[in-house]
Amino acid sequence: MVMTTQDFTEWSPQGPVTELSIEHCWQLLKATNIGRLGLSVDNQPEIFPVNYIADGSSVVFRTARGTKFNELLSNNNVVFEVDEQLENGAWSVTLKGTATILGSEIPGSPTADETLPHWVPTAEYLYVRITPRDIRGRRFERQLRLIIPEN
Amino acid sequence: MVMTTQDFTEWSPQGPVTELSIEHCWQLLKATNIGRLGLSVDNQPEIFPVNYIADGSSVVFRTARGTKFNELLSNNNVVFEVDEQLENGAWSVTLKGTATILGSEIPGSPTADETLPHWVPTAEYLYVRITPRDIRGRRFERQLRLIIPEN
Repeated sequence: MVMTTQDFTEWSPQGPVTELSIEHCWQLLKATNIGRLGLSVDNQPEIFPVNYIADGSSVVFRTARGTKFNELLSNNNVVFEVDEQLENGAWSVTLKGTATILGSEIPGSPTADETLPHWVPTAEYLYVRITPRDIRGRRFERQLRLIIPEN
Repeated sequence: MVMTTQDFTEWSPQGPVTELSIEHCWQLLKATNIGRLGLSVDNQPEIFPVNYIADGSSVVFRTARGTKFNELLSNNNVVFEVDEQLENGAWSVTLKGTATILGSEIPGSPTADETLPHWVPTAEYLYVRITPRDIRGRRFERQLRLIIPEN
């Protein structure tokens, strides 16, 4: 198959762009719960989809215990991205900051295993907090091409 | 606001996981056109949403000319991620490889600007190909907790 420039749809994250306020970014972060964690391990980039929650000043995501996350977070300089496609474009929020391993519970949170008995063995989670030093949100408009009709 | 472990929804990218075949990964890559490019610049990870097309052996994405992409691609070791939430879980495909700048056209493709006159000045694009050396796809099942009713 030959790829052509016309295979691209007409809106693009590189089309007209509006920068979003910090407040708007947090609203969007709070409204969603799946994001993407970006790491750099020995200068090799990595992306992992993660479940997360945002509280307006930090983001907490979880991973199964026993994965290589401790190792991967040897460089705790991370990026976190959330986006959504809309009918007339898309938005994306990117947060850069430092990841800190919280452990098997979010401090101050009730223990889920104590309050919810369950049959299916649930994976044990490791919770990680990202404290942002930089947050940026953009809204991408659908890019319209107006064709001039020929006479 | 205090975050609690119970704020997380019950499915998780870290729940039960099925590895997908390479063929299935390409089918999913071809069916979507928004992905996320992960870079590592001086060991700082970066994530950018991009428009892309996939042909079964490589992925081509585009960015507006004049951005810092040339600079950013000084480390052309990249990761590219596409995912989708489903009713009963989600899937994610991750591709690691090398990025090569193609220029303002995809080689062999007709020039869009010659074939489509338009009023709105369209951003000039820079096309970049990712040649994968590794591709991995996973399907995450919704994680169910069965509560044992008390007598």
